[in-house]
Amino acid sequence: MLMTKNTNTKRIYMDYAATTPVDPRVKKAMEPFWISNFGNPGGLYEEGRRANEALEESRKKIAAIIGARPGEIIFTSGGTESINLAIFGALKMLGGGHLITSKFEHHAVLKPVEDLKKRGFEVTYIEVNGDGVINAEDIKKALRPDTVFVSIMYANNEIGTIQPIAEIGKVISDYKLKNKNLPAGQAGHKLLFHTDACQASGYLDLNVDRLGVDLMSVNASKIYGPKGVGFLYKKQNVKLMPQILGGGQEGRLRSGTENVAFAVAMAEALRIAQEEKTKEAKRLTKLRDYFISRAIKEISKVVLNGHATKRLPNNINVSVLDIEGESLVLALDSEGIAFSTGSACTSESLDPSHVILALGKPYEFAHGSMRFTLGKKTTKKEIDYVIQKMKEKVKWLRIVSPINLDPDAQSMSRPEVFAGEGLRVKAKSKNFK
Amino acid sequence: MLMTKNTNTKRIYMDYAATTPVDPRVKKAMEPFWISNFGNPGGLYEEGRRANEALEESRKKIAAIIGARPGEIIFTSGGTESINLAIFGALKMLGGGHLITSKFEHHAVLKPVEDLKKRGFEVTYIEVNGDGVINAEDIKKALRPDTVFVSIMYANNEIGTIQPIAEIGKVISDYKLKNKNLPAGQAGHKLLFHTDACQASGYLDLNVDRLGVDLMSVNASKIYGPKGVGFLYKKQNVKLMPQILGGGQEGRLRSGTENVAFAVAMAEALRIAQEEKTKEAKRLTKLRDYFISRAIKEISKVVLNGHATKRLPNNINVSVLDIEGESLVLALDSEGIAFSTGSACTSESLDPSHVILALGKPYEFAHGSMRFTLGKKTTKKEIDYVIQKMKEKVKWLRIVSPINLDPDAQSMSRPEVFAGEGLRVKAKSKNFK
Repeated sequence: MLMTKNTNTKRIYMDYAATTPVDPRVKKAMEPFWISNFGNPGGLYEEGRRANEALEESRKKIAAIIGARPGEIIFTSGGTESINLAIFGALKMLGGGHLITSKFEHHAVLKPVEDLKKRGFEVTYIEVNGDGVINAEDIKKALRPDTVFVSIMYANNEIGTIQPIAEIGKVISDYKLKNKNLPAGQAGHKLLFHTDACQASGYLDLNVDRLGVDLMSVNASKIYGPKGVGFLYKKQNVKLMPQILGGGQEGRLRSGTENVAFAVAMAEALRIAQEEKTKEAKRLTKLRDYFISRAIKEISKVVLNGHATKRLPNNINVSVLDIEGESLVLALDSEGIAFSTGSACTSESLDPSHVILALGKPYEFAHGSMRFTLGKKTTKKEIDYVIQKMKEKVKWLRIVSPINLDPDAQSMSRPEVFAGEGLRVKAKSKNFK
Repeated sequence: MLMTKNTNTKRIYMDYAATTPVDPRVKKAMEPFWISNFGNPGGLYEEGRRANEALEESRKKIAAIIGARPGEIIFTSGGTESINLAIFGALKMLGGGHLITSKFEHHAVLKPVEDLKKRGFEVTYIEVNGDGVINAEDIKKALRPDTVFVSIMYANNEIGTIQPIAEIGKVISDYKLKNKNLPAGQAGHKLLFHTDACQASGYLDLNVDRLGVDLMSVNASKIYGPKGVGFLYKKQNVKLMPQILGGGQEGRLRSGTENVAFAVAMAEALRIAQEEKTKEAKRLTKLRDYFISRAIKEISKVVLNGHATKRLPNNINVSVLDIEGESLVLALDSEGIAFSTGSACTSESLDPSHVILALGKPYEFAHGSMRFTLGKKTTKKEIDYVIQKMKEKVKWLRIVSPINLDPDAQSMSRPEVFAGEGLRVKAKSKNFK
């Protein structure tokens, strides 16, 4: 995506997995709700009724797309809130039980799960294979009579690997079916399956029956909708406790005046994403593979993170060895290129990507991991420019780098050269064990 | 506010306390953040930095307006979430203690407080006087060594009465000062003062030092900003636990990709509201008093709810006796007028307004309560039209009404004619006591 920056140089945006610009059609759909149709959906009069109709129309549209009932859609302020509502809403009231999730979920899953662990829940973290794909059989093995919740992401946000949600859904429903004659409260009677589909919604099938999920979180900001809106699909018979209390909106599950403009935007963004996904996936898959093959061929010591084909059509995640991701982000930024790194999580911690580490790779791979995610405006020409600049910058950065790693290495070369408190401590404890 | 409806008749909107249209200046301020400046503030590259600058600029603007530090502003998805974060964030971790609030708070306060009550907290509900104003002395009397939280709204959402927040703030700081040499954990050492300022922010002083608050909730949708954004002011030394966990945004207190467009909108809406409040308050106070005096003079059995002058400049709340609010809402809606009633809460329950009941008035007053709230587009001509239509419709509705109440009555005439389960049960138990 070429955009004009203040200094009049062109920009190439390759961080579509972080967030997307709003599609002009989505912007247009929101437009009437700022000024002319601004009513509170709770109002009994015309302005209220019109706002409420728009809200319910959006709910119906989303429900139809994912094969659900309108009453099963709860609007929220985004993916993180949807996931928190799913996990805390279903589990806090239970007070205890066994959860299954994976090591490389988004923090929006991992942090609530850690919180529940402190409250007495037991957690099994499913291992991810070296390709970043979960085996449904591992879920099957982990299921216990007291398992109350399974949360597995549909597609990973960093490496884009696609998880076998429908298979896992089948494993779970089979387990419930097999045990259905056991006494209530035992062996899966309360077992719920949630998937974080925030990264998947632009490219993959979201039909909740085919996926076999009880709960599914989706947001708009990854599919050319605005930041600040999402929804939680909640199967009709699933009992949730609201996490935000007040006026009782959203079927008493999420209080606060409804954000009508953004509900409309969410529905429109999802409609466009799902309608265009096949065509766009085909186009992007080609561009993705072109990027990956050139990067691996033309730059030495570049390793692809995650499965080569079981990944989102727009995701390229490579570790460029002997380089710290952050340095390359800044170097390419100065050349007009935007992408992200798993070398440091900018918001919460300085530790390297838990996703890359979950693949079983040494810390260096996380520190040198680069995520390029393509989108609607991405062209082959942009990729050519990125590869060219990447080659130049990598060469230059390697000259000044203190690291020189064997790409087949299974352990760190010189841990002391890496920043990050968590890393240092762990590296140290490893050295002294 | 005159607007064109589908059928081409003009509309008069008098429910500005429910929500407001977006000010064109606010809409313009958001505009760049949909498409051109759409970055994720977590991004290390230019698009991310630019988004982050806009976010932090908005935080600074808000902080300057309310006399706080930027780090004391937490963006949320609205008033309800802000209030929930204040109450649950400060209290859940304590496990118990004594809370003080009033009977006529918004449900966004009352519901979380009820939830904490179930978890072992003790609650004192301060009585409101007949004029809908809380006496700071009553707070003083209610303070106990184990009081951990006081939450009093700045202005009531239904009757617009203004509460003496600065006085209450003084009472609380005096109490803390007096007891500061007592052992830690005793006598107000943990005591926090929160105010729900959602209705007040368009007209009243928001300086947190002058108010003496530790926590303050504000949203945009009442001050010509969009629905779906608000902020919580949290004094620097106050410890809060986040209620939505994930990437650790907003100083780890509120996870989820930041809604930059709406943060900008929040800041701009607050700037305009606070800059124009004196002039607008003066204009609206005149219109308000004109409305009230004509309604009382020209329609029989009309009673003003709430103090005549200690009320928001835009709030008119009257009980029109022998009429059910909902009927008048629908009748006037057909004449192009939008306003609301406390006769039924459309979202959560069919019970009549807890606010009007808190004033000590019989149920009929709640059932016949009408709230007209004025705004930027309101004119005298609109009020003349509303009064005229109100007179006609009230006359007509009274002919068909089964009720005939004495305006000085302190108890119900014929409780059995009112709808609402809560009412019926209570009316019955009164009769049989």
